Amino acid sequence: MIMKLDEIDVQILKMLQDNGKRSYTDIAQQLDVSEGTVRSRINRLLKEGVFEFIIHMDPNKIGLNVQVIIGIKTKLGHQEAIAAHLNDYPEVRFVGAFSGHHDLILQAYFKNNEDLVNFLNKELAKLEGIVAADVSIELKQYKDSFSYMIQEQD
Amino acid sequence: MIMKLDEIDVQILKMLQDNGKRSYTDIAQQLDVSEGTVRSRINRLLKEGVFEFIIHMDPNKIGLNVQVIIGIKTKLGHQEAIAAHLNDYPEVRFVGAFSGHHDLILQAYFKNNEDLVNFLNKELAKLEGIVAADVSIELKQYKDSFSYMIQEQD
Amino acid sequence: MIMKLDEIDVQILKMLQDNGKRSYTDIAQQLDVSEGTVRSRINRLLKEGVFEFIIHMDPNKIGLNVQVIIGIKTKLGHQEAIAAHLNDYPEVRFVGAFSGHHDLILQAYFKNNEDLVNFLNKELAKLEGIVAADVSIELKQYKDSFSYMIQEQD
Amino acid sequence: MIMKLDEIDVQILKMLQDNGKRSYTDIAQQLDVSEGTVRSRINRLLKEGVFEFIIHMDPNKIGLNVQVIIGIKTKLGHQEAIAAHLNDYPEVRFVGAFSGHHDLILQAYFKNNEDLVNFLNKELAKLEGIVAADVSIELKQYKDSFSYMIQEQD
Amino acid sequence: MIMKLDEIDVQILKMLQDNGKRSYTDIAQQLDVSEGTVRSRINRLLKEGVFEFIIHMDPNKIGLNVQVIIGIKTKLGHQEAIAAHLNDYPEVRFVGAFSGHHDLILQAYFKNNEDLVNFLNKELAKLEGIVAADVSIELKQYKDSFSYMIQEQD
Amino acid sequence: MIMKLDEIDVQILKMLQDNGKRSYTDIAQQLDVSEGTVRSRINRLLKEGVFEFIIHMDPNKIGLNVQVIIGIKTKLGHQEAIAAHLNDYPEVRFVGAFSGHHDLILQAYFKNNEDLVNFLNKELAKLEGIVAADVSIELKQYKDSFSYMIQEQD
Amino acid sequence: MIMKLDEIDVQILKMLQDNGKRSYTDIAQQLDVSEGTVRSRINRLLKEGVFEFIIHMDPNKIGLNVQVIIGIKTKLGHQEAIAAHLNDYPEVRFVGAFSGHHDLILQAYFKNNEDLVNFLNKELAKLEGIVAADVSIELKQYKDSFSYMIQEQD
Amino acid sequence: MIMKLDEIDVQILKMLQDNGKRSYTDIAQQLDVSEGTVRSRINRLLKEGVFEFIIHMDPNKIGLNVQVIIGIKTKLGHQEAIAAHLNDYPEVRFVGAFSGHHDLILQAYFKNNEDLVNFLNKELAKLEGIVAADVSIELKQYKDSFSYMIQEQD
Repeated sequence: MIMKLDEIDVQILKMLQDNGKRSYTDIAQQLDVSEGTVRSRINRLLKEGVFEFIIHMDPNKIGLNVQVIIGIKTKLGHQEAIAAHLNDYPEVRFVGAFSGHHDLILQAYFKNNEDLVNFLNKELAKLEGIVAADVSIELKQYKDSFSYMIQEQD
Repeated sequence: MIMKLDEIDVQILKMLQDNGKRSYTDIAQQLDVSEGTVRSRINRLLKEGVFEFIIHMDPNKIGLNVQVIIGIKTKLGHQEAIAAHLNDYPEVRFVGAFSGHHDLILQAYFKNNEDLVNFLNKELAKLEGIVAADVSIELKQYKDSFSYMIQEQD
Repeated sequence: MIMKLDEIDVQILKMLQDNGKRSYTDIAQQLDVSEGTVRSRINRLLKEGVFEFIIHMDPNKIGLNVQVIIGIKTKLGHQEAIAAHLNDYPEVRFVGAFSGHHDLILQAYFKNNEDLVNFLNKELAKLEGIVAADVSIELKQYKDSFSYMIQEQD
Repeated sequence: MIMKLDEIDVQILKMLQDNGKRSYTDIAQQLDVSEGTVRSRINRLLKEGVFEFIIHMDPNKIGLNVQVIIGIKTKLGHQEAIAAHLNDYPEVRFVGAFSGHHDLILQAYFKNNEDLVNFLNKELAKLEGIVAADVSIELKQYKDSFSYMIQEQD
Repeated sequence: MIMKLDEIDVQILKMLQDNGKRSYTDIAQQLDVSEGTVRSRINRLLKEGVFEFIIHMDPNKIGLNVQVIIGIKTKLGHQEAIAAHLNDYPEVRFVGAFSGHHDLILQAYFKNNEDLVNFLNKELAKLEGIVAADVSIELKQYKDSFSYMIQEQD
Repeated sequence: MIMKLDEIDVQILKMLQDNGKRSYTDIAQQLDVSEGTVRSRINRLLKEGVFEFIIHMDPNKIGLNVQVIIGIKTKLGHQEAIAAHLNDYPEVRFVGAFSGHHDLILQAYFKNNEDLVNFLNKELAKLEGIVAADVSIELKQYKDSFSYMIQEQD
Repeated sequence: MIMKLDEIDVQILKMLQDNGKRSYTDIAQQLDVSEGTVRSRINRLLKEGVFEFIIHMDPNKIGLNVQVIIGIKTKLGHQEAIAAHLNDYPEVRFVGAFSGHHDLILQAYFKNNEDLVNFLNKELAKLEGIVAADVSIELKQYKDSFSYMIQEQD
Repeated sequence: MIMKLDEIDVQILKMLQDNGKRSYTDIAQQLDVSEGTVRSRINRLLKEGVFEFIIHMDPNKIGLNVQVIIGIKTKLGHQEAIAAHLNDYPEVRFVGAFSGHHDLILQAYFKNNEDLVNFLNKELAKLEGIVAADVSIELKQYKDSFSYMIQEQD
């Protein structure tokens, strides 16, 4: 379900996208509304699941130097169970079912090639129904942002 | 460069991963250290670029219903310039250079198929040096997390 | 077997291609033949299976928003049985055996991505002998016509 | 835009799907409504573009023996113009833009291989921006129906 | 055009398939017809182009050790001219236009790898409109026969 | 083993390539050698397996209208047995093991698409160890010759 | 672990790259250090596994005429065991696990095509878990060197 | 040209394969021949180019941590010039022309991903005629040997 978002909602989200620690007081001043309005809007958006406060770590700074996208071909009927298992690995950042050559595409981060080889040959090998797992290794990152376009919804 | 992270750094990051809004007081109590220690650690980690406070919006809740991964083959020598341009599109969430069949892989979010077709045929068509752009459309999302594994680094 | 079609047959078919509801009287006048001739020609063509009267619904107008082509690779010997089962799904509009990478190509219409994912993982997964099912999602439709070229056959 | 369809609309469409020549009187009797109701419903559905009356010819009966699906890769930016030209060929029955390996997929019918070779080498060769045209030839047809699933829409 | 072949034609062709040097006298005796009948049948079949007398050399015995199949992708519109040029090379035994990934498929025989590399880089490189030439090298030959199935045609 | 061929052998083979029915007398006159020399040379070449006299039928003239190349991927270890079985089908003209994507490549001729579909789904399906069979259909033939280059060998 | 290499280590390695038989006396003179220094440096580098003295044979000179790269797709979990077996074949010169389409890539040398076909169909066929083995045959070699770039490491 | 190798040549080569520094005295004792025989055999084999003395460095020990195989598709006619340029890069260890999907395959070693990206986008981009460069990154090495099989040749 798409949420109805008015202009104030959109402005609040844009400010928090810039800085997730921005204070409600500061937002209220910028938008010329009361701090109570900001608070109630944010609480409603959080409750509806429109956004959440998180932190984004730089993987290279915490020693996760091997960053990969893995395309997985599954046997028909095994996609849901495989995706559920992949969900449990802390190395796995993103999993989705996709149209096209690969049924599942996942993004994962490892300390080194040895950990990646173990993940493929020890962990993925335990999951039934994987036909192929094609690894692409990230050579250089240009963008990794969560600042989506936001527009009024009605 | 990999940061040196001691056990307190790791514990603080793990708590913030759970909830980006957790108060320093709360963290200090949990770890049995002073609030000043928590504050100085967090400030150091922020300054070194280890993490940042952000918000993560649910794209479906804000009307971005068409979520795609696009694999791009480039002419040799054009990768950097193309990546720099892709960086500027608000629709584009992620861009990286990868080993394998596609030189660049990007993740992007659109309101509908029409916007996606326009992005491919109007916007990407302006960039010199794109040989092919293969679109995979997300059918179902299972995980989109930033809770990476964190370990002590020394 | 190819039917013998004379010029009057061809003219009648061309008029009905334009408008499947055109009256026999109108066709007779246009071609300067009797209505009985038109009626007997049409009855013969229907009986020989040269054409049938149908309606063509716009899938978007009836809520079938996800329109796909699925290429299926089968294990040798299973193609006929798989095609027979696919034939029974109301979501499936077209199925044919083809030369090239995919043994069977089908066109199908769904309400949304969830129904498509279920079709792939619940329904196709029941059919024995499917090696791979590669989904292409229609982003924009330019033509969907049944006005084939018709020429005299003798 | 999706039309609102109530149960009577759905029943009328299902009857016409079975037989595009079914009389309004017959439909009215089956549904226990007046012929005027049937007529006004059908006129509204036709006016809104929900369906049209057409005829479906058997291509083999009219001498179109070579039935193909052609996947086309285009240079970025040329898709719209190429699709517009393809639209004009009477041999071409279906053209759509798709996700995946081929940017455009078309279905076309020819009298023989010679006409197909000419279409590829004489006609498609005139269109600027086609990178590749991969031909799959239909070996056997199992289904070619327009009886989509119809459900009440509100 | 398919020739009408009666049972005597078929029997004569089958005998010549076994041995291209079989004498007309021998054939006549086997079929219990006059030698004149055999001669006139063969002359008619030769004149109509149904068959020709040739010799089949073993390429390995005459020093042609590198036997390849080359799949060629062409730019649209260049296929005919490329095929005409390929026709002129004595190394090329077979050229045809095909459906599927490769527009032209050719079979060719070379003395050694050096001659093959020269053919690709010196000779094919002269022909305008070749996008790719993918070489498959024959590792072992199991059958190379001209004994097609022959059936009566009427 | 490569045969030693002197200039007279080469000249004889070239003449027979032009016309498999050329008389020994005619060849002897052209080369200014005795008919006995021609006869003994030809007998030696036949005995050593350098060539054989055959006939080459035009497949279209005898009703074999569907001419295909089929690339087969086999399970490791099954190639020899599969090739041996393929050898027995009269529809199959050529079978070889090749480097590259397909382990076996075969050329076969059929009366129509129905016979081809049966060959794939009834006959090939009986052979154990075939992973995939990719069919390319010949659209136009440009060359099918056995006139290889011949050079003196010593 | 990367070794610390100072400038003298680097110079010694570069001289040995040129000629593996260069005497310690000669190296000492060139670098203006004592022969004892050269000896102790080389012994340390050998002990740490930085390099070893080997001979490089020209495969063509010793009758290994068929030089191939084979890309292997494995079932998940079988890579280690397959690689261990490949390691034992004297025909196999190089084996590595790689990102991309092939899980393992190996380089191997054979006397002729027959030995290659046997290796594929007799030897590889014994190893459990190989999904596909794609052979590329070397047509011409341009470089096969072990003179890596060496730089000071600290 | 293949060298004639007798049993003593073969034994000498096998011993040097084990240890490139083995002394002639040691080899002579093992084979029960004079040191002069060993010396003259080795000198002949070196002069004929059968082998050379080299050193093999462990790339990881000298800081070359990113080891790749790159498959290159070239425009017809550019292969020789591209291979000649690749030959000059010290990062490139191996270059060959191959049958199959990639016209050239090269092996290269880099310090890190940044150097690899620069090689692709700065260096390869300078060479005319490269259509695609597909990178596979080595995740784990199992064998890198020069101990080819050696057999007597006569």
